[in-house]
Amino acid sequence: MLKAFPGEPCDAAASMDRITSEPVTALQSSPFFHSSAMDGYAVRFDSTFGASETTPVRLKIPDAALYINTGEPIPDGLNAVIMIEDVNVVKDGSAEYIEILKAAAPYQHIRAIGEDIVATELILPENHKIRAIDIGAALAGGHTQIKVRKRPSVAIIPTGTELVPPGTPLTRGKIIDSNSAMLAGLVTGYGAVAVCCPIVRDDLNEIKKAVDAVVKAHDLVLIIAGSSAGTRDYTSTVIKDMGECILHGVNIKPGRPLILGMIDGTAVAGVPGYPVSAYITVDLFIRPLIEKWLGLSVQEKETIPAVIGRTISSTIGQEEFVRVKVGRVAGRFVATPLGRGAGIMMSLVRADAMLSIPAMSEGVGAASEVNVGLMRPRSDILNTIVCIGSHDNTLDVLYNFIKRKYPRYSLSSAHVGSMGGIIAIKKREAHIAGTHLLDEETGIYNIPFIEKYLQGEKAILVNLVYRRQGFIIMPGNPKKITGIEDITRDGVMFINRQPGTGTRLLTDKCLRDRGISGQNVKGYDTVEYTHMGVASAVASGRADTGMGILTAAIALGLDFIPIARERYDFVLTKDSYTLHMVEALFDIIRNDEEFRQTTLRMGGYDISDMGKVIYES
Amino acid sequence: MLKAFPGEPCDAAASMDRITSEPVTALQSSPFFHSSAMDGYAVRFDSTFGASETTPVRLKIPDAALYINTGEPIPDGLNAVIMIEDVNVVKDGSAEYIEILKAAAPYQHIRAIGEDIVATELILPENHKIRAIDIGAALAGGHTQIKVRKRPSVAIIPTGTELVPPGTPLTRGKIIDSNSAMLAGLVTGYGAVAVCCPIVRDDLNEIKKAVDAVVKAHDLVLIIAGSSAGTRDYTSTVIKDMGECILHGVNIKPGRPLILGMIDGTAVAGVPGYPVSAYITVDLFIRPLIEKWLGLSVQEKETIPAVIGRTISSTIGQEEFVRVKVGRVAGRFVATPLGRGAGIMMSLVRADAMLSIPAMSEGVGAASEVNVGLMRPRSDILNTIVCIGSHDNTLDVLYNFIKRKYPRYSLSSAHVGSMGGIIAIKKREAHIAGTHLLDEETGIYNIPFIEKYLQGEKAILVNLVYRRQGFIIMPGNPKKITGIEDITRDGVMFINRQPGTGTRLLTDKCLRDRGISGQNVKGYDTVEYTHMGVASAVASGRADTGMGILTAAIALGLDFIPIARERYDFVLTKDSYTLHMVEALFDIIRNDEEFRQTTLRMGGYDISDMGKVIYES
Repeated sequence: MLKAFPGEPCDAAASMDRITSEPVTALQSSPFFHSSAMDGYAVRFDSTFGASETTPVRLKIPDAALYINTGEPIPDGLNAVIMIEDVNVVKDGSAEYIEILKAAAPYQHIRAIGEDIVATELILPENHKIRAIDIGAALAGGHTQIKVRKRPSVAIIPTGTELVPPGTPLTRGKIIDSNSAMLAGLVTGYGAVAVCCPIVRDDLNEIKKAVDAVVKAHDLVLIIAGSSAGTRDYTSTVIKDMGECILHGVNIKPGRPLILGMIDGTAVAGVPGYPVSAYITVDLFIRPLIEKWLGLSVQEKETIPAVIGRTISSTIGQEEFVRVKVGRVAGRFVATPLGRGAGIMMSLVRADAMLSIPAMSEGVGAASEVNVGLMRPRSDILNTIVCIGSHDNTLDVLYNFIKRKYPRYSLSSAHVGSMGGIIAIKKREAHIAGTHLLDEETGIYNIPFIEKYLQGEKAILVNLVYRRQGFIIMPGNPKKITGIEDITRDGVMFINRQPGTGTRLLTDKCLRDRGISGQNVKGYDTVEYTHMGVASAVASGRADTGMGILTAAIALGLDFIPIARERYDFVLTKDSYTLHMVEALFDIIRNDEEFRQTTLRMGGYDISDMGKVIYES
Repeated sequence: MLKAFPGEPCDAAASMDRITSEPVTALQSSPFFHSSAMDGYAVRFDSTFGASETTPVRLKIPDAALYINTGEPIPDGLNAVIMIEDVNVVKDGSAEYIEILKAAAPYQHIRAIGEDIVATELILPENHKIRAIDIGAALAGGHTQIKVRKRPSVAIIPTGTELVPPGTPLTRGKIIDSNSAMLAGLVTGYGAVAVCCPIVRDDLNEIKKAVDAVVKAHDLVLIIAGSSAGTRDYTSTVIKDMGECILHGVNIKPGRPLILGMIDGTAVAGVPGYPVSAYITVDLFIRPLIEKWLGLSVQEKETIPAVIGRTISSTIGQEEFVRVKVGRVAGRFVATPLGRGAGIMMSLVRADAMLSIPAMSEGVGAASEVNVGLMRPRSDILNTIVCIGSHDNTLDVLYNFIKRKYPRYSLSSAHVGSMGGIIAIKKREAHIAGTHLLDEETGIYNIPFIEKYLQGEKAILVNLVYRRQGFIIMPGNPKKITGIEDITRDGVMFINRQPGTGTRLLTDKCLRDRGISGQNVKGYDTVEYTHMGVASAVASGRADTGMGILTAAIALGLDFIPIARERYDFVLTKDSYTLHMVEALFDIIRNDEEFRQTTLRMGGYDISDMGKVIYES
């Protein structure tokens, strides 16, 4: 069984957040002397016997009654204090007396020795995380140093020939080592001390040298990457050659290729290189180790019951950890899955909670209730506006402005397309949805869809922007694309949006108008989930063009062939509309000049109706 | 309105827990190049058209198919990866080919540029507290530095002629300055940087000099003590003379004499000197200031509904903050008030939550439900055994041992006497109660009381110790006390325990046996709430003797006149007895040899029946 680390002395005043390694008992009492709890006169209580309204007792100053301030020590031989309000000072010749109308009780108005802390009393138990008040009490109890658990020392070795340190200008094939600092931050948060070592290339001997250099001086070595079973994966060989491999591979996703071992009495872990895998394995397997060493209980994350917005399927045989966004809508917590790839760091940045799908489960059905482990405080989640629907670049800006102007509120957006957004409002899975759905028959945006899909609801539609949709193309238009007809041409690769988005509907309408089948468009079945995803596909050469908003093209310095001007609105129920956090959002949309100017500066937007109520049902 | 502080650059890798002062948007996409998501062959997807089981397509290595490892960049001109499992490598003379049985889709098995982060995308909004994963994402997005809010800088000036720095041997009239380090810990926890200044004596000019020395270089100066309106209280004069006093006195208890002001554009606060007042005023008034400066939302404490065990009265006209212990018993949270004096630091150390009694309330009735603001994580409270009843010194030891052996559990004890404990069990306000009640008729301890007061309950009685009760006296017995008769003697001061305690009943029985009235005992009406309190009263000369246990006398080096040997048992319901945390407690009592030896070493205990079940109903 793992043992807690021994203690080391620590200045009590600097012991914040350290963990006691032995009980702290009072070396002395506090207060250390009897003192007056009031301004008044110190007397012997038995000299006041018999005092009453009719038979006042007189005591001579200073022989039998001494003036005393609050906090001053009670002079020897005296044992009660009479409040200044309860005495009359009278003069008799040159002598002064106090006159008392009521007998004093022993030790009245005296703050007694040990009133707060009695010598030998337990102030703090061991394995206790020290707070500010504990520092005060330990000092008052006579301690200047206390024994605290040694912090586990963790060396982090990033491996990979492709890695470069942050700040290195990137070239193709190079990856920034962001894992080292991320893991250092994680283990520091658990209470350890982290040392990040230089990057080591994929070479068995180099890695061994790097491990050898740190293994004796640390309690734990984390070797990042190379933990799989590939030909260039050396971590397990390093651990086997230098020590003992205890475990290789855990049945989880992401994070399967974790290695745990021992070298020369030091714990060594091979941490998978994908950032999400690294984060999850360290949080699941390294955190409890560090907490045990620190004498802390292994903290279970707070879980809350949440309704799953859409079906999440999962492979049988592996426990899967799905990052989810969580919001509280209409009294329930609703969870929306985020990107599931082990390389999608932003899925962790954006996550509010983690859903664990057991190894023997095929997944979770839509609308089922599950327990999710919180990754943010519950209060943050209660103060988050859930926006599910169409993607627009202003949502990021809006998120930032709400954090700027109303730091307690937040905006969480998931991009499932306009139709998905309206359905999310209907199903009470979102407070607000962005939508830009053109009704082809009437030529009217959004309203016909609300009347159809939100029938019977008290809904409201508020304009955010008018925006330009069109074909995003490489600068200079190398493929000479002039319109929809060109996307079927040989050598032209298209990038699409997912079904259910207004942009996909627009693409399909354009194709239908020209009698073109999607079958004839190369890349028609390859989809991105945001306008920026489409723009990025074009910018990176993965596609030659795709339908998206002008703003996205401008953001990445691309060219643009305009196709339509469309209205992008927010739809919400009236219940959501009156929530204080939603009112704060509309305050920014309607009244924050800087937000409006920032939107304009992004390019491609017309804000003439921004914040205007378009429709109410 | 208060504005958030401007930003300062910070190494992204060292930015844990700092607050962003501007949005962090991606400077570059991540990944930065198209890479293979699999081990396999990179090809042009259109070179695979027509491939099927019956018409395999052959591609020449390396001209048309290049071996590629996971993570490697996709070579120029190629745009799909075929998994190694899906190809046959065939030889034809000296040439090598791959044979494909299925056409490849564009960009299949390729990790695309920007899959995680697209350049210009928002990674973190402003006013965001940076976590480990945020560091990873910021680095991956191309940042090595990010702008974070400057930490508010707080100077702390302790004032008081009676103060000495921690570590100074105490003499009468001297008090350890524990407030400075406590407040430094508090404001550091809020995100500020604290500087503790030397102690300044109660002298107007000295205090002004000390303030002058720091006021320009800091954002906030906390002057501790001297904030009342007494003759030696200079803080308000200092602030008025040097700047502007904005507020003097708040309607709260403890904490009334708070001062807020400005000197040369720097915020200055006069913080009351009593430690609990200092803590509460800083938490209520200084914390929001620091959080605003940091751009954080003002964090509201989590509140939970709890039932109040006993009536708490409060003065009309002041909002009162009562520290309470909270436990979860039989499905409800139960709150027990702790010591209410502004000088009782241990009431904050022991507190689980704070109950605010509004200014216009006279208090809270027993059994009423109130909301209390948590001071510990809710999970800690769920894992705390609530012990209400008679005090014994072993309870401290037991508390320490449970934290040692089962760090996730805790033991919280409140000392309300044996009868109070039994009633607390009856009312489901405690899991466990310590009791040592002698039934005078039968000479039996505890059982008759359980049969009477816990009638109809499934209760269980487990022995902890046998212990010695007697008169605690000064070493050498200067007052020549030989027995109960002596406590009525002139010049002998007694210290009593509160009604309802087994020890009080024992005292009263002794007096009755001798026909002595409490009226004739000086100090009969002065009570302490623990054996250590009685021992401390004797040790400090406040009383000459009191009834208490031998262990308490030994702890403070006092002498002892034995009166009775008594059985100290734990009583609990069978429901509580089967809780895992309670089982852990009895595991220590029954099986932990070190606990048993520690108990013996304290002196005065017989542990021959320790852990034995005495009675079950």
